[in-house]
Amino acid sequence: MMSSQSKSAQWAQPESTHPQTGLKVFNTLTNSKAGVPFVPREGNRVSWYGCGPTVYDASHMGHAFNYVSSDIVRRIMEDYLGYDLTMVMNITDIDDKIILRTRHRHLLAQYRAKADALTEQLVADASAALYAYANESFGDLVAARIGSQVASDRDWRAFVAAVDEGRDKAFVASSEKAVMQFDAASAAFRAVGAACLSLADGERSRAAAEALVDGAKDVLAPWLDAQFKESVTDQRLFRDLAAYWEQDFMADMDALNVRRPHVLTRVTEFVDEIVRFVQRIIDNGYAYEAGGSVYFDVEAYDGENGHVYGKLSPQSKDSARLLAEGEGSLAAKNADKHNDRDFALWKNSRPGEPSWPSPWGPGRPGWHIECSVMASEILGQHIDVHTGGVDLKFPHHDNEMAQSEACFDNHQWVNYFLHTGHQHIEGRKMSKSLKNFVTIKDALKLYSARQLRTLFLLTRWSEPLNFSDKTMEEAVSIERTLTSFFANVAALLRDSRRGQQEADAGRQTNGPELELLAALGDAQDQVHCALLDSFDTSSAMRAIQDIVARTTAYLQRGRGTIDPQPVEAVAQYVTKIMRAFGMADDSAARAIGWGSGGGDGGQGAVGREATLLPVATALSDFRDGVRELALAGGDKKALLALCDRLRDQVLPELGIVIDDHGDGRALVKVADPEEIRRARELHEAKEAATRLKKLKEAQLAEEKRRATLEKSKVPPQDMFRSPMCDLYSAWDERGVPTKDKAGEDLSKNSARRLAKEYDAQKKLHDKYLQSLAQS
Amino acid sequence: MMSSQSKSAQWAQPESTHPQTGLKVFNTLTNSKAGVPFVPREGNRVSWYGCGPTVYDASHMGHAFNYVSSDIVRRIMEDYLGYDLTMVMNITDIDDKIILRTRHRHLLAQYRAKADALTEQLVADASAALYAYANESFGDLVAARIGSQVASDRDWRAFVAAVDEGRDKAFVASSEKAVMQFDAASAAFRAVGAACLSLADGERSRAAAEALVDGAKDVLAPWLDAQFKESVTDQRLFRDLAAYWEQDFMADMDALNVRRPHVLTRVTEFVDEIVRFVQRIIDNGYAYEAGGSVYFDVEAYDGENGHVYGKLSPQSKDSARLLAEGEGSLAAKNADKHNDRDFALWKNSRPGEPSWPSPWGPGRPGWHIECSVMASEILGQHIDVHTGGVDLKFPHHDNEMAQSEACFDNHQWVNYFLHTGHQHIEGRKMSKSLKNFVTIKDALKLYSARQLRTLFLLTRWSEPLNFSDKTMEEAVSIERTLTSFFANVAALLRDSRRGQQEADAGRQTNGPELELLAALGDAQDQVHCALLDSFDTSSAMRAIQDIVARTTAYLQRGRGTIDPQPVEAVAQYVTKIMRAFGMADDSAARAIGWGSGGGDGGQGAVGREATLLPVATALSDFRDGVRELALAGGDKKALLALCDRLRDQVLPELGIVIDDHGDGRALVKVADPEEIRRARELHEAKEAATRLKKLKEAQLAEEKRRATLEKSKVPPQDMFRSPMCDLYSAWDERGVPTKDKAGEDLSKNSARRLAKEYDAQKKLHDKYLQSLAQS
Repeated sequence: MMSSQSKSAQWAQPESTHPQTGLKVFNTLTNSKAGVPFVPREGNRVSWYGCGPTVYDASHMGHAFNYVSSDIVRRIMEDYLGYDLTMVMNITDIDDKIILRTRHRHLLAQYRAKADALTEQLVADASAALYAYANESFGDLVAARIGSQVASDRDWRAFVAAVDEGRDKAFVASSEKAVMQFDAASAAFRAVGAACLSLADGERSRAAAEALVDGAKDVLAPWLDAQFKESVTDQRLFRDLAAYWEQDFMADMDALNVRRPHVLTRVTEFVDEIVRFVQRIIDNGYAYEAGGSVYFDVEAYDGENGHVYGKLSPQSKDSARLLAEGEGSLAAKNADKHNDRDFALWKNSRPGEPSWPSPWGPGRPGWHIECSVMASEILGQHIDVHTGGVDLKFPHHDNEMAQSEACFDNHQWVNYFLHTGHQHIEGRKMSKSLKNFVTIKDALKLYSARQLRTLFLLTRWSEPLNFSDKTMEEAVSIERTLTSFFANVAALLRDSRRGQQEADAGRQTNGPELELLAALGDAQDQVHCALLDSFDTSSAMRAIQDIVARTTAYLQRGRGTIDPQPVEAVAQYVTKIMRAFGMADDSAARAIGWGSGGGDGGQGAVGREATLLPVATALSDFRDGVRELALAGGDKKALLALCDRLRDQVLPELGIVIDDHGDGRALVKVADPEEIRRARELHEAKEAATRLKKLKEAQLAEEKRRATLEKSKVPPQDMFRSPMCDLYSAWDERGVPTKDKAGEDLSKNSARRLAKEYDAQKKLHDKYLQSLAQS
Repeated sequence: MMSSQSKSAQWAQPESTHPQTGLKVFNTLTNSKAGVPFVPREGNRVSWYGCGPTVYDASHMGHAFNYVSSDIVRRIMEDYLGYDLTMVMNITDIDDKIILRTRHRHLLAQYRAKADALTEQLVADASAALYAYANESFGDLVAARIGSQVASDRDWRAFVAAVDEGRDKAFVASSEKAVMQFDAASAAFRAVGAACLSLADGERSRAAAEALVDGAKDVLAPWLDAQFKESVTDQRLFRDLAAYWEQDFMADMDALNVRRPHVLTRVTEFVDEIVRFVQRIIDNGYAYEAGGSVYFDVEAYDGENGHVYGKLSPQSKDSARLLAEGEGSLAAKNADKHNDRDFALWKNSRPGEPSWPSPWGPGRPGWHIECSVMASEILGQHIDVHTGGVDLKFPHHDNEMAQSEACFDNHQWVNYFLHTGHQHIEGRKMSKSLKNFVTIKDALKLYSARQLRTLFLLTRWSEPLNFSDKTMEEAVSIERTLTSFFANVAALLRDSRRGQQEADAGRQTNGPELELLAALGDAQDQVHCALLDSFDTSSAMRAIQDIVARTTAYLQRGRGTIDPQPVEAVAQYVTKIMRAFGMADDSAARAIGWGSGGGDGGQGAVGREATLLPVATALSDFRDGVRELALAGGDKKALLALCDRLRDQVLPELGIVIDDHGDGRALVKVADPEEIRRARELHEAKEAATRLKKLKEAQLAEEKRRATLEKSKVPPQDMFRSPMCDLYSAWDERGVPTKDKAGEDLSKNSARRLAKEYDAQKKLHDKYLQSLAQS
């Protein structure tokens, strides 16, 4: 006998045959291709900062890939791995692009409003704008050819030739900017030409004026901006444009089922915090003020106190082009910078630019500083995860890191930098010049959000994605396979539940079922390992496709021999993973409160009511009709007609199908109203075909009837004597032929046949005469 | 400048300040009070076997606590910790209790059906049954007093006194069995007494016979069983009873929102596997056949090849009482066992018991072996988790372990044994004798499933639970606090979404908001640590209550100054935890497929279907009825009755209310079915009160009528002369008094009053005489 002491000693802690946890992630801060262990600073909590959009235009497929891929990673961490995540995303609503876009729109609208007639002045303005634009954009290439005035027709033609030539070159070189410039100049050129012809014709209407302004808008806008930008002093104009595109962006994200951040921050709401943050960097000796702007001192920072500049992208950190792009198009020409590598933390705002007060005079935040401040303000001096597109690696994220670590004088402000991969359209970089620029709204016209997400899942978040007809075909096919799998399982489960209520199914989980459960276990292992391997959704999707195919094969065994239990387990697991990938609806899972069906109504009642009320109303209406007819005595025909109308017209609209069966118990199905509509259209088409066939048969019968009638009108004695019938030469008293055309006696057979024909006609004709007498 | 090599070297793997994972569980297989690390054998997959019910009666609160508490643990593992769990639960549908219950019901129903008149024989049967029962149950205590025949009234009275005396004693001793026996005998005693009186009155109706059988049923059943059990040969009878109570159990579990197992196994479906399993134990030398039964050889097993018997409950493993209880009431009296500690693996079935063929002759599985086989058959030779109530520790689970480890000749067949705690009602053990036996259905009439679950959450699964008015009051109050918190946040979010559409809220996440986010982080840490600490839901609930209180305080700041973002984050987190605890609805989360609202219609049919199908089916059934009646000619009354039934019985169950209006158009409302039920009960209670009032009024009227009738029977000439009326001494010829008791003349007023009374009585009496003449 064992004592209780020795008993516990017997228990051996199990050893796992598979990795239980141990998430590894691709971290841009290391160059490990295998991923590094993911360790959140505070237990199960993960702080996450995601770079949001600069809001000045419609979002495109590049945004879709970046935000949906981040969303997939986020959902796996939140829903599959169960981390308590706090996600912050910013909206960049102060930016050079926003300033320029706002001023251009505003000045152009003002100019257009005043253009109430086509005048020589308008044409001169447009020409001057075009020249300035061409000069600025193409310099020697074109301006040399047309001189300082666009005058003669010949000059125009030379310019067009130059534009076209340039456009081709630009196209081949895939220089998006050049192509857009050529397109803008070309449109303005044609508009000015058309306006000249109008003037010559004496056409000076407002419509002609507006046509000129609209055609030349891309050259007029910078021309007006150069002259009148300082007149744009209303800061609300900048904010309104940003607000418009922010809402547009959020609507796109909702349509793509991208989970919203916990905290959304806007730069305009954090300017005070930005000023304090910049001051702290100056105080730490890593930034300096010059000309009303503040610049980050890369030289002072890099190597000081263990700081490293350009951790993410050491190979880019001296790229002048990338640095300049990061500084924005309104940047001062480096005049005040101590060093070309320095970048603006605070920009001295000139007239026509929004501004906030600061110790360095009125100005606005630089681009990179915004993210440092908003992320730190909400999440603190250490952040677990930072995401963004790979194109933000340098200079944006490197500068962001440098700023924060300069401000807090710490290291590893962010522990894990996750960069989503590049996106291509049909194998090429997406750009307006390649005419393969696809907005999110365009894409959603062609594919459902789920189909797009399927494509993204097939590529790991960190790898380049190719959005093409062919890759989408594969994605759509996988999505459809899953859809039909779910539908089949749902039907099986309904069936088996019905069976269960009637009697014991006597089912048992046997060999094939245990094999299916084992296969499910394998799939779970594969998916788990794949997701722990830096969110390898591509491999996970393969495992899911395998188990779905295997289950579908099991379902081929036929109704009686299927155990629904392992099938349901598979389908629930696949649904769980699809939900964690954001493929299945999780609105209920994100809702607040007890949810529907919890027993106490309360919060969940609304959705239930919305679903139930139409059917409940149809039921009640039907019952009203039955009562009315019953009270009136119970007209059998009317009652049955009411029943038919319910089945054929009312319920299909509500997505409910009733099939009457011989035993008087109808079968009920709930379906997609849209599907029912399609089925009904098919049914109606078939019925129409049947009707057409019947109609044709009736026509044939009628024709036959008429022919018979016509035939019956002929008296039997005349039938062999008509002028059309010249086969005979002699007839007996009845009119039946006796001799043929040649005067020869007819053969006995012929005579007998003709006599028979005579008798038949006599019968027919007598009937005819009878009918005449009766009518 | 740093090279890219040195760059990656800079990255330091973060260290966590809190435990990230590291679930510890209380494992009955160890005596560690701190819990042991939980390591599933295969990575993220957890195999789980839960002991299901023996299905022969309604489930009670003990079942509720066990299964809901296991469900909470399961959900935390599946939903919060994200394990891929496979759960198997058995239904014990072969068992001595099922056999006895079936035979008793069947034989009693047969006997009752034949009892078409009250006879001396019936009384003699009931008396004999009562004597046998009393003798068996109370032995010397009572039987001595009444001899071998219950004859005289004096004997009965002595027996009653004994019963009552005994009952009190039993009650005080809380011996459930004794109290039930006394109650059964007492009821039979009264029924026999009543039957004797009926016979004396000549009353021999079927109703009197049935009253006797019903009253004496608890003594008649074993008496009939002793004589006729062998006549019960139809195995379906046993299966039918089990199937009925299985469905009843599953319905209770659904009502309590207990997640169903992935695989549900029934013993009757695994008999072949059990036979093979038992044979393997015999082959391994750990069991022997004796008298057509097979017993586990504890002596041979304990200590052999590292095996240990009684791992879970070493202090119980020699308890003869527990061992005997485990063997079942139909067990052979140990005659064939080599050793008292041995227990049956296979029981030789006697006539009147269901049986299956086996190498040892026809028989049936023992109780413990069922679980060993079904668990191993589905989950294999190693199982991660095994759950059950603490009362199953010994002998059931210890024997189960011994059997499996004897069969597979392995150790640690189960790695983690989780036993849910004892339950008390108002601080005392639940028992029928204490009149505190509460079925699940009873409890659900008083409290919602969520309120009951709240109570269970407040006690850790492994600890004893007290179900009392006071503890439920606390649970209900917490549930209400959460409900109103959710409602407040939902309202705030609706409000702010409206505001957002109108204009920029200009909101910002500032000091108080950052504090709230920090408090949320603390709550997340506390909940996470609590749940990792062997699912300490009690501490987790405290953390949830704290963050809810804190957020509610923040909400007091007033509308304009509230940032909805951190509030929504808190509410989503609380909802997430509540959902993981099974408090919030997760039907959508458990559904199969894309779910509703996925954007492309069609796919969302599942959730929609679950809501719509019951109503659509009701509609279709109603329509079936209408068509049937219409085809039969359209019976008005029947049609209207059908309409009423739909309104009054069918739809309320579905949460739909129809109010008929005068204009023939009914009003439709969708409501919570539970609310409708409560409203209907209230309505019924009111109606019952009205009926009662009417009944009382009718009674009063009847009493009045009878009094008047009695009064009318008195002839007017006698009314002042009755022996009871000694107020007067002289009367006139009509019988109206003239002098009072003392011989004095009556006053004029008195004389006038008495004459009036006389006239009234004369009128009344004449009416009476008239009615006599008429009848």
